[in-house]
Amino acid sequence: MPGFKRAEENRLLSRLIKDGDQLKGLDRRLFLKQAIGTLGGASVAALSPMALGNANLPPNVPSWTSSLGEGVVSNPYGMPSKYEADTIRRTVPWLTADPISSISFSPLHKLKGIITPNGLVFERYHAGVPTINPDEHRLIIHGLVERPLIFTMDQLRRFPSVSEIKFLECPANGGMEWRGPQMEGLQFTHGMVSCCEWTGVKLSTLLEEVGVKPEGKWVLAEGADGAAMSRSIPMEKALDDTLIVYAQNGEALRPEQGYPIRLLNPGWEGNTSIKWLRRLEIGDKPWYHREETSKYTDLMPDGRSREFTWVQECNSVVTSPCPENPWMEKGWHEIEGFAWSGHGKIKAVDVSLDGGATWQNAPLKGLVLSKALTRFSFMFKWDGQPLLIQSRAMDETGYVQPTLKQLRAERGGNSIYHKNSIHTWQVKEDGSVFNVQLS
Amino acid sequence: MPGFKRAEENRLLSRLIKDGDQLKGLDRRLFLKQAIGTLGGASVAALSPMALGNANLPPNVPSWTSSLGEGVVSNPYGMPSKYEADTIRRTVPWLTADPISSISFSPLHKLKGIITPNGLVFERYHAGVPTINPDEHRLIIHGLVERPLIFTMDQLRRFPSVSEIKFLECPANGGMEWRGPQMEGLQFTHGMVSCCEWTGVKLSTLLEEVGVKPEGKWVLAEGADGAAMSRSIPMEKALDDTLIVYAQNGEALRPEQGYPIRLLNPGWEGNTSIKWLRRLEIGDKPWYHREETSKYTDLMPDGRSREFTWVQECNSVVTSPCPENPWMEKGWHEIEGFAWSGHGKIKAVDVSLDGGATWQNAPLKGLVLSKALTRFSFMFKWDGQPLLIQSRAMDETGYVQPTLKQLRAERGGNSIYHKNSIHTWQVKEDGSVFNVQLS
Repeated sequence: MPGFKRAEENRLLSRLIKDGDQLKGLDRRLFLKQAIGTLGGASVAALSPMALGNANLPPNVPSWTSSLGEGVVSNPYGMPSKYEADTIRRTVPWLTADPISSISFSPLHKLKGIITPNGLVFERYHAGVPTINPDEHRLIIHGLVERPLIFTMDQLRRFPSVSEIKFLECPANGGMEWRGPQMEGLQFTHGMVSCCEWTGVKLSTLLEEVGVKPEGKWVLAEGADGAAMSRSIPMEKALDDTLIVYAQNGEALRPEQGYPIRLLNPGWEGNTSIKWLRRLEIGDKPWYHREETSKYTDLMPDGRSREFTWVQECNSVVTSPCPENPWMEKGWHEIEGFAWSGHGKIKAVDVSLDGGATWQNAPLKGLVLSKALTRFSFMFKWDGQPLLIQSRAMDETGYVQPTLKQLRAERGGNSIYHKNSIHTWQVKEDGSVFNVQLS
Repeated sequence: MPGFKRAEENRLLSRLIKDGDQLKGLDRRLFLKQAIGTLGGASVAALSPMALGNANLPPNVPSWTSSLGEGVVSNPYGMPSKYEADTIRRTVPWLTADPISSISFSPLHKLKGIITPNGLVFERYHAGVPTINPDEHRLIIHGLVERPLIFTMDQLRRFPSVSEIKFLECPANGGMEWRGPQMEGLQFTHGMVSCCEWTGVKLSTLLEEVGVKPEGKWVLAEGADGAAMSRSIPMEKALDDTLIVYAQNGEALRPEQGYPIRLLNPGWEGNTSIKWLRRLEIGDKPWYHREETSKYTDLMPDGRSREFTWVQECNSVVTSPCPENPWMEKGWHEIEGFAWSGHGKIKAVDVSLDGGATWQNAPLKGLVLSKALTRFSFMFKWDGQPLLIQSRAMDETGYVQPTLKQLRAERGGNSIYHKNSIHTWQVKEDGSVFNVQLS
């Protein structure tokens, strides 16, 4: 948790402001006492972050205004400021035996809007990231088809392309939290979800090329990584919105996201969106390969397992405040977060400040797209009382995000995947925030 | 221009395919002879990029499938594949005297969709990129206001945030082309435009905080760079959609984009969106500072200058084919490009294949957002004839992108900025593409 450098800040302020005499009575606490208004700025009352007296006085000229900076293409491929060095993906060493079959978490507490920048998209590998030469990579489509075909990357790029903003989530997101709060911050409770603009070819377009035989009802997708990661996809999904993706957020896929091509099954478990895609086989039944039996099933209380639980159900989380983004002062704050659903658009989000006893609507803001992260916002004037903040999303199908109690009643206590229950942040009197679970 | 490694490709193919005997009759040329159908896949005919005979035969297992890759957080902040090393910003050394007051161009020929990844957003500096410590940075708002205020970054982040996908363009984009084709490829003819999801606070929200006096009609925005770059913004725009931005595509602004904060005037000349913003002064008239007199005016034929020509008018360009993306084969191709308008949404785009003699509608695809890049697409079966490909965009105001002849008739021959005329790519019989201008 980043410390609040109040002393340092005051020192800097006094250095920055040219005429101290004109700033007597300067009171940061004004910020605490005044309303900053409602979202959208419909009614904004007076707020004085830093009163400047009545002088039209700019602060002293900082050092970087009196010197020259770096020129163009100093960084032909640009990077973040050195002051953002803690905005990185992080892993949990105890979570997996080896980093080549593990996960990294996206720093959600640092992210704004709905786009996840490519360098911060969460990672999940089963045998590490292969380094693939795109000129040597091929996609083969075979099995129950009229014309088995092999495609080069150049050939795939000849097909009409589509670009869509979609979330991608590991079904294990939040999976450590089934049996009590385990993770300290947002990056680890929810950081296995990202959202990008993906560009590629509709799988249905390629399937028309090869001509699927009438008995072809399933597609096996296989990656070119050391795990030869594979999943069975029903034809209905393949013909609906599945993409063969070669670009994310405008540029070529990142190696960790499947360079040069991956599958994308919008709204479904991330592991079905096979990375480093090299083979699609058409068959008449699912294959029950390793990663759809040893993993990615849900052990139910009666000893049976749910299989093929593809859809990432409606979910949401408050991203500010959160343990990494505590409240430093009383007064108005924007309670912000995002919601998403593998079934379509988010319809509404409610926020509770009292652990679910009462709820208020939190307006959605910005783009509301199907199977994409969607932002919500709730303005709140905090007087220092302790809070139990929750968000509860509803999608366009009418499905409402459940409580953990409801989820456990249905799924029992053995699950890892598909924990989409309402999450609770405890805000203490000093503004610090903790991950808690209510009984 | 990247060469087409046909010989190498054939060699690789023969290595990848296990059973050559089953692949006799393999004919890449089938690709040329068959229709791949219309956009959207409504009717897709047979196409055989690589016939595989009738065997259900995958290619040999590539080396990267039989080895382990790199583990998670090998790159806590991820980077593109080493095979994408030529996807970079580039500059034109002869264009400016010094790289600290120059521009770099975005590799538009490599980009897909509408989001420009942060590392590839074009750059424009007047005194280089300052390295600013956000803890020391302040925004002051003063002048004709009731309560002059200084904001820290933490304070700015307390206000309700908004996220919007908007293009950003230098008015000099295409400016080298006023008097004949100068630049060889798309990266340099149009590479001063990018499009990101920007997050920040509405300027109107902050102006309510300081309380603009009735006589306050203009805002001077000043940067903290060595140029103290400044522009006068009319109050009407400031109260409409101007943002104080601290994030782009989800993460903190890049240093070259104004870290830690910048102004964003959606749809307007990029230089008005002052980077490294440190001061906003409210006044009753424009300031006519250096960069709004020495630059960013348009010398007209009668010797007078157009001033405050803020809006980036409706524009478009074909991104494939282009000189960097020639056509290697006959047959079906997607003619793809993007259009944008500082006045709002794109309404329609037409494409001409004969230098403007005849036009056909090119459907828009994906998101159509106000003041954002918007993709269009036109499927075309090329038989090898030479072409003069053009695109012509219309925005929601009804404004139609002009020809260069029309633009010159109005503006004369002295202009640098605001060249938004219809662009022409010449496709030769061998598929190579050249930047030309029609008389």
